[in-house]
Parts: sequence; C-alpha cells; structure tokens
Amino acid sequence: MKSDIQICRDTTLTPIEQIAEQAGILPDDLSPQGSLKAKVKPSILNRLSDRKEGKLVLVTAITPTPLGEGKTVTTIGLAQGLAKINQSVMACIRQPSMGPVFGVKGGAAGGGYSQVAPMEKLNLHLTGDIHAVSAAHNLAAAALDARIYHEQRHGYDAFEEKTGLKALRIDINRISWKRVMDHNDRALRMITVGNNEPGKTINGIAREDGFDISAASELMAILALSKDLKDMRQRIGRTVMAYNLDGKPVTAEDLKVAGAMAVTMCEAIEPTLMQTLEGVPTLIHAGPFANIAHGNSSVIADRIALKLSDFTITEGGFGSDMGFEKACNIKAQQADRGPDCAVVVATLRGLKANSGLYDLRPGQALPEAIFAPDEQALQAGFANLKWHIRNAAKYGIPVVVAINRFPQDTDAELTQLKAMVEAEEFGCHVDVAISEAFGKGGEGAIELANAVVKACETPAQFKPLYNLEQTLEEKLMTVAEVGYGGRGIELSELAKNQLAELKALGHDNLAVCMAKTPLSISHDPSLKGAPTDFTIPIRELKLCAGAGFIYALCGNVMTMPGLPERPAFMEMDIDEDGNITGLS
Amino acid sequence: MKSDIQICRDTTLTPIEQIAEQAGILPDDLSPQGSLKAKVKPSILNRLSDRKEGKLVLVTAITPTPLGEGKTVTTIGLAQGLAKINQSVMACIRQPSMGPVFGVKGGAAGGGYSQVAPMEKLNLHLTGDIHAVSAAHNLAAAALDARIYHEQRHGYDAFEEKTGLKALRIDINRISWKRVMDHNDRALRMITVGNNEPGKTINGIAREDGFDISAASELMAILALSKDLKDMRQRIGRTVMAYNLDGKPVTAEDLKVAGAMAVTMCEAIEPTLMQTLEGVPTLIHAGPFANIAHGNSSVIADRIALKLSDFTITEGGFGSDMGFEKACNIKAQQADRGPDCAVVVATLRGLKANSGLYDLRPGQALPEAIFAPDEQALQAGFANLKWHIRNAAKYGIPVVVAINRFPQDTDAELTQLKAMVEAEEFGCHVDVAISEAFGKGGEGAIELANAVVKACETPAQFKPLYNLEQTLEEKLMTVAEVGYGGRGIELSELAKNQLAELKALGHDNLAVCMAKTPLSISHDPSLKGAPTDFTIPIRELKLCAGAGFIYALCGNVMTMPGLPERPAFMEMDIDEDGNITGLS
Repeated sequence: MKSDIQICRDTTLTPIEQIAEQAGILPDDLSPQGSLKAKVKPSILNRLSDRKEGKLVLVTAITPTPLGEGKTVTTIGLAQGLAKINQSVMACIRQPSMGPVFGVKGGAAGGGYSQVAPMEKLNLHLTGDIHAVSAAHNLAAAALDARIYHEQRHGYDAFEEKTGLKALRIDINRISWKRVMDHNDRALRMITVGNNEPGKTINGIAREDGFDISAASELMAILALSKDLKDMRQRIGRTVMAYNLDGKPVTAEDLKVAGAMAVTMCEAIEPTLMQTLEGVPTLIHAGPFANIAHGNSSVIADRIALKLSDFTITEGGFGSDMGFEKACNIKAQQADRGPDCAVVVATLRGLKANSGLYDLRPGQALPEAIFAPDEQALQAGFANLKWHIRNAAKYGIPVVVAINRFPQDTDAELTQLKAMVEAEEFGCHVDVAISEAFGKGGEGAIELANAVVKACETPAQFKPLYNLEQTLEEKLMTVAEVGYGGRGIELSELAKNQLAELKALGHDNLAVCMAKTPLSISHDPSLKGAPTDFTIPIRELKLCAGAGFIYALCGNVMTMPGLPERPAFMEMDIDEDGNITGLS
Repeated sequence: MKSDIQICRDTTLTPIEQIAEQAGILPDDLSPQGSLKAKVKPSILNRLSDRKEGKLVLVTAITPTPLGEGKTVTTIGLAQGLAKINQSVMACIRQPSMGPVFGVKGGAAGGGYSQVAPMEKLNLHLTGDIHAVSAAHNLAAAALDARIYHEQRHGYDAFEEKTGLKALRIDINRISWKRVMDHNDRALRMITVGNNEPGKTINGIAREDGFDISAASELMAILALSKDLKDMRQRIGRTVMAYNLDGKPVTAEDLKVAGAMAVTMCEAIEPTLMQTLEGVPTLIHAGPFANIAHGNSSVIADRIALKLSDFTITEGGFGSDMGFEKACNIKAQQADRGPDCAVVVATLRGLKANSGLYDLRPGQALPEAIFAPDEQALQAGFANLKWHIRNAAKYGIPVVVAINRFPQDTDAELTQLKAMVEAEEFGCHVDVAISEAFGKGGEGAIELANAVVKACETPAQFKPLYNLEQTLEEKLMTVAEVGYGGRGIELSELAKNQLAELKALGHDNLAVCMAKTPLSISHDPSLKGAPTDFTIPIRELKLCAGAGFIYALCGNVMTMPGLPERPAFMEMDIDEDGNITGLS
C-alpha cells in the first residue's frame, strides 16, 4: 500500500470554497487560507441559530497501545462512510502538535484512505492556531517575569509611585504559569531563567522554571472550551499565573495582559475547514492534551458542525477513561451538550496488548507476535473492550464498537471478535462493525456508518457522572469509583491542603480532570485489561480557573515529551519544487 | 488627528485579489489568506523572467532617535506619492516582530495616512512566517540537545551501534545555536537548560543557554537572503550549530534536521501581499535585525516587485551606517542587484538629537524642547545629515533627502533645513523634498516622488565598498574606515583567534556584518553628529555560514529585548465583535 503522504498527494482535492458551499457555509462566513483550508467565522452561529442540531457522535477507544488504535482513522472513515450512504455529515478533530510529528508518533491526520487532506498542512502550522496559543501563553510569562523584575528592582512602593500600578508582590516560589513550545524538547523541562553575569541584575530574578509542550497550555483548553470570543476573553482573564506573598492568586487580568493575550488569539478562535480524502467537510480546532486537559476538539467547532449537518463525528483522546470521560464530564457540562452516541474503537493488537500476556515496554516497538492470531490473548484482552463499552453506556448513550482492521489482521480473528461482542449481554444498545476505513476509505466504513445511524435513532439519555455543585473531593471520588471502577482516591498531604485552599478560594464548583496514564484504566500502566483493585493516588492538584477545572496529578504525567535517538524529522526533506518527503 | 488603528479601520480597503490583479499577479501566483492578505508564490519569477526590472529605491535615515524617524512612513508615503503621479510602484517591507508591538515601540506598519493595512494583521502573526522561523530554529535546538543527551547517555560507541548514526561528539561548551522566541522576554536571555531532579538524568545534560528574539535567528537572515527554495534549503544545511570535541563545526545537515527545518519554513518563503491605505501593493517578507543581521526585507520580494513595477520602494533598518550599508555590501552582493537610488529620511527632532545639545537617555522620552524651533541645535545636528548623504553617495547612487514632517514642526524650520541641504555642495546628485506622508498620505509625498523619479533618470553606478574575495579583516577595516569614516578596527584577542579559525575553516570569503549601536555612526552611542575620531573595537566574531556573513560584535548588542514597567500590551484589548483597541 502507498504511504499516507503519497495517497494524499495522489488524491484530487476539491477547492475549499466548494467544500464550504456544499456544507452550507456562505462566503461571508469563510476566510480562505490558500485553496485547501479556510477559517470559519464563529459568527455563522448567529445566522444558524434557528436551525435544529444534528447528532453528536463521539469516537473513543479501548485502552490504547502507545501507537494508538486508529481512532482518527475511524473518525474520518466513519464520516466518509456516512457520506457514502448519503447522510449529511461533518467531522471535528483536534489540530496535531508539531512535536510528535517531528518526534516518534508522526502526524495525526488519520491514515491510509481515511485522512484529512492535505495532511502536510494539517500536521505543520495549519492556520497558525497553536502558534497563537504559544505566543499568548509566552506573552503572559514574559509579563510575569518583567513585573517581578521591575517590582523588585524599584521596591514595591517606588514601583507604584513610578508606574501608577499596584504592586502585585508576586511570590517567586509560587509561580504556576510555565512557558510553552510546540516541540518535543526535554532540555526545556526543567530550566533556570533570569540568570545574570556575576554582580549584575539586568536579566531578571533567577528562578526555576520550565516549558510544557503547547498542547498542555491552559490557553489550549480555554480555546477548546470557549463558547465565543467574549467567553474566551473572560476565561483568559481568570487564569492564575502565580500567588502573591499573602497567598492570593495573581491572574492574567491582574497583570493587565489578558486583553493582549485575547488579541493574540483572536484568529485562533475560528475553526479551520478542511476536507477528508473523499471530500467530507472537516473542522480542525484546538488540541488540548487528554490528561492535564480534557483532550477534545472545540465546543465552537462542534456547535457549527451540529448546526450544519445531521451527523457530527468527533473524538476524544486516548481510551474512554480519558478523553471520553472528560468529554462527558467537563466539555459536555460546559457546552451544555452531550454526545448522542459513542463509538468504541478496538483492534486485535490492542486487545492482545491488554491481555497481560505480552511483554510490552514503553517506547519499544510492539512484538511481532502480537499481530498473529492468538485466541488466548484475545480472550484475555476482551475484558478491556467490555469495560470500555460499559463505561460509555454509563453515560446513557448507545454504543457502537468499531473493530479497526490492520493490514496483518485475519478475517477469522476479526469475525471472532465481532461475534464475542454480539454474544455479550450489556443491557443497553450495543452494536459492532468491522471497519476497513484505513485500507478502503468510506467504502470500508459503510457497515459502521449504518450501525451509527441505527444507534442514533433512539434519543440518547445523556447524563454526566457528577454535578458541578458537588465538592471537588466528591467529584474526584466519583470519577475514581464510578468512572474507573476503582476503590476510590488517596490524597497526598499536599493534595489535601490544596483541596482546602481551592475551597477557600471559591473553586469548589470547578470540574475535575484526572491527569493519569492512558495505558491503563487505573493510574498504573502495568495494570492491563479491566482492573478493579486499585485506589487512585492523587499527588497534587493544579488550578485551571480559566478552563474551568482543576487537574489532579495521579502518578507522573509528562507535559514535555523528548525526541528519541532517531526522530522522525531525520527522514523529512523538501525538493526545489516544494514536494515534502518523509512525513507520515 | 485620529489614531493609527482608527485611520486604518476607517479606510475602505480593496480585496487582495484585486490588488494582485492590478499589480499583474495572476490567480495562479496567489494564495489568498483571508480577504486582505495573500501569499505570492516565488514561481511567479519563472513566468516573469523575460521582463525588465524597474528601479530599486532604498529608503534609509539619519542616525535615529530610539523612537525612529519615520522611515516606514516615508517608504509607504513615497510609494503612495509615486502612485499619485501615475507611476507603477510596489513597496517591500519587513514583517514586524511581535515583541516590540507588545513592548515599547508599538507596531511597524508606518503610521498616520501612510500605513500598510490592516495594521493589526501586519503587526500580529501576519501569515505566520516569524512563527515558522521560530519553529524551525527551535526544532534544531531540540535536535541538538537531544543528540547530546542520547550520545552521552549511551556513550559514543553504543550510540553508533544502536542507531546506525555517526556520533557527533558535540562539545557542550561550544554551542552556538541558541533558542528563539518572538517576545521581549529578558528572563530568557541567560538560562540553564537540561536541569534534573537530584540523581536523575532524564531531562538532558545541563548547560548554559539563552533565547534571542526570533528576528535575531540566522534563519531569518537566510529567509531574507535566499534566492529560492533550493537556495534556502542549502543555506539551512550550512548553518553551524556547535563544534565537536575536535573543534570542527557541526551543521544542521550533520544533525539531519536541515530538511525538516526547510519543510517547516516552506510557506515562509512566499512573501505576503498587502496594500497601503491608498491601495499600493506591498510585499511583506522576513524581518532580520539590522545589527547582528543585515536588516532588510527579502531578496525574493524585491525581485518580484522589480519585475512587476517600475519603482520598488524598500527600506533598511536604522541609519545609513546600519541597514543601508548592509543592504549594499551584504544583500546587494548576494542578490547581484544594488539599489538605484537612496532616500535619506531626516527629521528636525532627529537632527537636533544629533546636535549633542540635548540630554538624551536611552529608554527615556525625548525632551519636549526638542520639538520647538532651535536654530543652534539644527545647525549642529545638520552634520549628521550631511554624513548620511555622503555615505549613501559613496555607493555610486543618487540621493534624495526626505524631510519627514512631524505634527509639531514649523514651516519655517522645515524650509530652513531644506535650504541648508540645497546650499551644500555634495559633488553628486542630491535632491531634497519635504514629506507630509504621515498627515496627508501620498498627496503629501508628491514632491518627494517627483524628486525620486528625477533621480532615477540617470542610470546608477552602484558599487559595494568591498569585494567578497578580500579577507575578513580587510572587509572589517573597509567598513570601519570607508563605511563609517573611523580610524579603523581594534580586534580583541578572542576576535583575532576567531579570524584565524574562520580562515582555516574556509570562511574568509563571507561578507561582514557589523553589530553595533544604531544610535551613533560609531560604536559609541554617546558620539553624536558625524564623529571621526573613533576606532571600532571588535569584541567577538560570530559565524553565520548559512546567511553568508560573519557578524562582528562591536560593543554590547542586545538580541533579546525586555519589557518596560508599563508595556504597550497593557492598553490592548478586544471586544466581543473582534474589534482590537490599544494597538499603535
């Protein structure tokens, strides 16, 4: 089979204005960026306010291997499959970070014959939204260090007299706003900033700092959760950058930088319209992580797609314990709109990886044996799929399992897995289809598309697991017990103190976002399948007052990846005509 | 008078496709980015290869005050003035950095009725080229630290065995590639990267590092100097990131990251078409500093404009000792195309500031008195203007002085200055005009436009000050003696050793780029007017093998600005309809 970029290049794409027109987006709603991508103005929602919304289909997955189970392939493939059976459909996905593109993972445009195109535009810069997020984030960081420097250099009273500004008296040991960069750059994880030549203090006040990858910026979560520009501006103002010497939060508004941050992000709030290889209109917007953030594309993009089409296909990061849980409990509650149907992507290799019978090591290639038929491993790993089906059903919505076929998979084993799902009693609407979206595009996803249409015929009874009115501790417990099926939570002393402080600051009504490994339903990546005997240890809580959640660190969560020995960038090049090679 | 952003917003702009069409840019050459900006594909040069080139007019200035003397206003105003007298004209300017926009200086779109529009697009992100430069630059930095980390972690032999790559054995004390960010962030000037928790080595090898502002990246200079994509790709490959333990250079090619860097910059190589307030087509491209780099917009943009119009108006950063000198000796030699005419911008306040009679302090506002008539100061400062006229004439081209009128200036004093220029004997073509481009747009620059047309009637005899075949030391001496009129250069021990090393590495044929203060013709900002009694001290030489020059540090040159106590960003905000306020 041809490489992803080759398939993409060999496909004749439709001018984006035409894609827009077919989707019902008028020229006034559109700001073309070249011939194959266009910004869609959120003001389109005013024009469409009277329209009925379509169905929101949320694609999730079993507990994934580090290589992923083909969720984006299935999302795009399903959208193409729906188009094949003449349904009106749009897809909504996140913008890929360039870090993984140059690192190990490669692009995130889907793959094979189910891709968003042109994949090299999607994977690199796109329309600059991630750059805008980084710029706004780092402006605030520069503002913070400059303010500390000037206040300490002049002294608080003299600073106030000179500037007419109130001294913020920032505690340099309690700064919560790091810097960000859209690269895998491990050397920036822990840094010292504000160093000076001996005897001078012209570069600021030295302190420990670090960079996260841009997808981990709270501004990325804000971009994805904002209803409109006004909402985004207000959320930015609420972000907490540090605490002062009295322990009170110092916000972007306090630094008088929130307006400029919103100015910096004012085009980023417009989703980008692209197309799949089969011409299905696709909105790309925001790219928050699915651990320290909620891991789903934007509320604004969903809303636009729901108004324009009968089916909106979107996806949450990692397995249903991660992005899907957060889509239901964080995003859906803030957007006041839950999903109508869940699609759980399963693969033979992924279920076998969940059997506990293979020696899988993080950062290592999967063993070859995992791709060959293995009845015992499949049976053992099936527990994981059952868990994710039941997990999705918990939220009151029908479930369709999409078995995503990989080239090495045998018909016999695929059929067997399908039969295993069909034989199981779930007590709710569960359907299953084999998807060949990677190898066959929309044609390979017709069975899946039909199953999704059927699932959406019954109105969903979506409900989140908790209400925002519950206390933070209750919400954390609910996710651990009801969400993961574990035995509860164990708070560190630090976390207990932080809970008390957050309550005192009036943040008990925020949502909770579990920052845990995606490689297990629990907090422990070695617990495969469907573990139940675990208690989630909560080491630390972090406030994202602008995004509207606190996140709870359960184990080590890496917010700045590193480059491997042979990074993907080594294969990339461009010829004198602008043809890019080596991108996958 | 209305504010810049207000004037801009009150002007009805023309759709960019129409601007392009009027300029002779076909739809196939164009990639619109929204309705008011568009990328122009460099392949247009193939189509236009048979066309005759127009005249290249290079706008420069007297020794500026830190606030600038209105060079961009004059550049845009002159272009509008030429259009008013029915000449075919385009302007070419650099893309502003966001750092100064949020810091002290504000935007760089010109001002008043001579602006590039929309000014908020130009000043923020534009089409993302600076972000692309930053991303490519920082990718290389991440690649460098990752390589050091992996080689040291495994040991050189084990690294080679594991990866099949040759160990680069990088000397971590000789790393020349810093990181960059497009913000004024002084805390990042001197940092330590690769810090680790005690006893761990998972974040890399700790070392001293720092960030420059993105305009200071060698990639920015490369973008501005490249002839085409192939040239840019090759130049990127030649950039030197570090030296190995044997003292040999380690390039981007050695790191196998040059291809991915070029991929990252493949859209940045396309200039962006915008318009002035009066609809003159303007190409925006690249934004190199005028001290550690050559400070002029791109060769590609110039070339396109020269093919499309009879007059191309461009500008060099700072005074004629800085951007103009580098335009003539670095850019013109690499592009094989020199300017046909120099426009020297002078202001009453700028000449008085050069009198030495005012107590001017860096970072402080200009004293009010400088705006009132002051015969003595004007006479004393006039020496500076005469110097810059003679300096431009040295290169064999006609000179037009543009006296840029500020609102406070009196007719009497402006007329007096004009008469002073007219009374002086220069022995070459020198003309003078008062420009009211700020207050009156093109109408206010008709006198100037006529003078420029007249100056261009005689074919120019452009020649640079040195040939690339001379030694580096000869070239440095030539710029100091012939270029600045000083007594020569004084090399530090370090610089002497570096000269020998550069020669040994085969770099004696590169151009030289003086990194000195713009606030004096000499290296010493306190020497105003037209000093002659100075020797340029050269502290250190830096190799920019990709850009094709070495730069010589003459005194302290700041490559990462800082934010002041009350930065410009504090005034900026955006309302719910997307209207931006506080940008100037």
